[in-house]
Amino acid sequence: MRVWIAGVDGYLGWALAQYLTVRGHEVAGADNYKRRDWVAEMGSQSATPIARMTDRLQAFRDRFGRNLQFVRGDLTDYELIENSFRAFKPEAIVHLGEMPSAPFSMIDVRHAVFSHTNNLIGTLNILHAMRDVCPGAHLVKLGTMGEYGTPNLDIPEGFFEIEYRGRKDRLPFPRQAGSWYHQTKVHDSANIQMACRIWGLRSTDVMQGVVFGTRIDEMGGEDDRLLTRFDFDQCFGTVINRFCAMAVVGKPLLVYGKGGQRRGFLPLRDSMQCLGLAIENPPADRGQYRVFNQFQEVYGLTDLAERVARVAREKFGLAAEIRSVENPRSEMEEHYYNPDHKHLADLGYRPTHDLDGDVAIVLADLMKFRARIEAREHVLVPDIRWDGRREKVRERS
Amino acid sequence: MRVWIAGVDGYLGWALAQYLTVRGHEVAGADNYKRRDWVAEMGSQSATPIARMTDRLQAFRDRFGRNLQFVRGDLTDYELIENSFRAFKPEAIVHLGEMPSAPFSMIDVRHAVFSHTNNLIGTLNILHAMRDVCPGAHLVKLGTMGEYGTPNLDIPEGFFEIEYRGRKDRLPFPRQAGSWYHQTKVHDSANIQMACRIWGLRSTDVMQGVVFGTRIDEMGGEDDRLLTRFDFDQCFGTVINRFCAMAVVGKPLLVYGKGGQRRGFLPLRDSMQCLGLAIENPPADRGQYRVFNQFQEVYGLTDLAERVARVAREKFGLAAEIRSVENPRSEMEEHYYNPDHKHLADLGYRPTHDLDGDVAIVLADLMKFRARIEAREHVLVPDIRWDGRREKVRERS
Repeated sequence: MRVWIAGVDGYLGWALAQYLTVRGHEVAGADNYKRRDWVAEMGSQSATPIARMTDRLQAFRDRFGRNLQFVRGDLTDYELIENSFRAFKPEAIVHLGEMPSAPFSMIDVRHAVFSHTNNLIGTLNILHAMRDVCPGAHLVKLGTMGEYGTPNLDIPEGFFEIEYRGRKDRLPFPRQAGSWYHQTKVHDSANIQMACRIWGLRSTDVMQGVVFGTRIDEMGGEDDRLLTRFDFDQCFGTVINRFCAMAVVGKPLLVYGKGGQRRGFLPLRDSMQCLGLAIENPPADRGQYRVFNQFQEVYGLTDLAERVARVAREKFGLAAEIRSVENPRSEMEEHYYNPDHKHLADLGYRPTHDLDGDVAIVLADLMKFRARIEAREHVLVPDIRWDGRREKVRERS
Repeated sequence: MRVWIAGVDGYLGWALAQYLTVRGHEVAGADNYKRRDWVAEMGSQSATPIARMTDRLQAFRDRFGRNLQFVRGDLTDYELIENSFRAFKPEAIVHLGEMPSAPFSMIDVRHAVFSHTNNLIGTLNILHAMRDVCPGAHLVKLGTMGEYGTPNLDIPEGFFEIEYRGRKDRLPFPRQAGSWYHQTKVHDSANIQMACRIWGLRSTDVMQGVVFGTRIDEMGGEDDRLLTRFDFDQCFGTVINRFCAMAVVGKPLLVYGKGGQRRGFLPLRDSMQCLGLAIENPPADRGQYRVFNQFQEVYGLTDLAERVARVAREKFGLAAEIRSVENPRSEMEEHYYNPDHKHLADLGYRPTHDLDGDVAIVLADLMKFRARIEAREHVLVPDIRWDGRREKVRERS
């Protein structure tokens, strides 16, 4: 299948290009390298060294014996997308090319506006280019489980049948996002759903849980140029990845607030498996819009910190103490959480269910790059607060 | 009360400034005159002649004996809003400053993107400026009944209590908008709701029905410079206003598709009454976000066309035939529609319930400006289609 990946230089995109190539797909991709700039803006860097794109592409050829068809450019540039679609004729488009950080979007009005324009315009451009160039293609769009927020109900996959005052309908499940970033994903979901309805596009909207991990098997393991990035700053590092980075440099694992926040998680390898299943099993009909809740298991934050700490202590002899700090976010710290995740299982998703094993791989990889984290360890304590202040969090009393 | 109106040069804004001034409020406002440009882009003009702002402001002084504090500028300019809030210290902010047209947003990718950036950035800027300058002020934001779409359920005012799989919660009612414009309003609603929750702002989000009318009593009736604009093109003319314009120049009243589309409507005078009630009765508590469904009554499109035609024939001797044309939109043409509208009634809204009388006033006003409609009568037949084509609609066979 011809798969076009937006954000192919990113954490998921660079891994997915390799995963799909190994499975025999023809891959093209676009990126504007903005993720590199954002992480630099945070005063941080990827723990894994990231080669420049020309070197990445050479490593790709060396390992897989074929080219990744790369276009440098920004998704807010409509012509770039339209021209690239005309040339490549994609059958699937995987949109991983958005600004992915809640705290980054909450820094100030400029970042809130940037998050909206960057993410919404990119998606609008892709939808219009699909309509005009490849209306039969399948859009696999990366959303987030965070779109739903934490309602006091089970969370279905996108839609639910309800009865209200004696009448019934199937409606989109209400979204209650908790940051401007999460809102952009909510807005995208509504826009994509409408485009499917009025233009007969087909799309899988992936409500993904929190991903963690340094690698997938398809990268081989010998050529560091094939490693994907691994961020550990407050904006672009996801929580398990940040816990691992903290443990490796001997810093306490910082848990926000009461730590009872529950979320769905999945390792990078599972994210690739799930995206691959979505791509290889497109919706049968034009106009179909479906939602997949994509995660392996739900954990509470304190539980996760304790699991990472235990692996860090037992297998690596690290101190890995846990510390509760002020929550810089505005979120519920104790709540019901029971999202469905059946659609991907129905397509054949087989979760690895080895959190400790996956954490051990991450820690082993990070031990190798420990100096790169130490050089930026000031970014491990967050200071971006939902109320607009920029002030490092303190220990909870 | 000190009321700051975004979009004070517009259809609602110019009327509201006068309505509130008569009621003793101190009014300031901003506008970028974009509505004038958009209507010109459609090859049209307001049926009522619109004076330039300096003349409008002079007429305002002449009639009301006080200044309207006007700032020319764009809501996408954050500093403009922040500086204006600091100077004026608003107690209420009425946000009428968005691009208000579904067809305009559907023209092409450029218009879809513009609708999103213009509307979403303006609202994000207002929210941030409120947080930082006047967090106790009350935001009255103009949304639209179109945010809800046409579900097969009663439509509550913003939120509903539901039971799902044996658990209960109060959740935002799902939105299913039918154009990019309507989506921008949905996105705004989600953003405002979040800002209220995390920053303790207070807001009334007005899901307004379709407004029609040329004037309100507060304009007096002697000075045309105080008239508000009246658009009749496919983008900026609302449906009753367009029916009236068609009747006045002897053109058939064009009904889209089967004409069974049902919507809530209200005359301009009622819109002012409702916005006034919202402004004068702000939410009691910081952090409160409430939704008002603002309309007088629900009508089907064919019924409306018939009522306008009858008044036009009986009172003005106009031909006013009705013609069914292809629907350029993608929408349900026969559907259940039963939205609540109790919140404003609870605050004292007394609908005039005299559709025929209000239509007669519009027709009488338009007879006076008939030549201005005739000069642009080519804009009466729509050509912007939801599928992306630009082609005049034909009569239905």
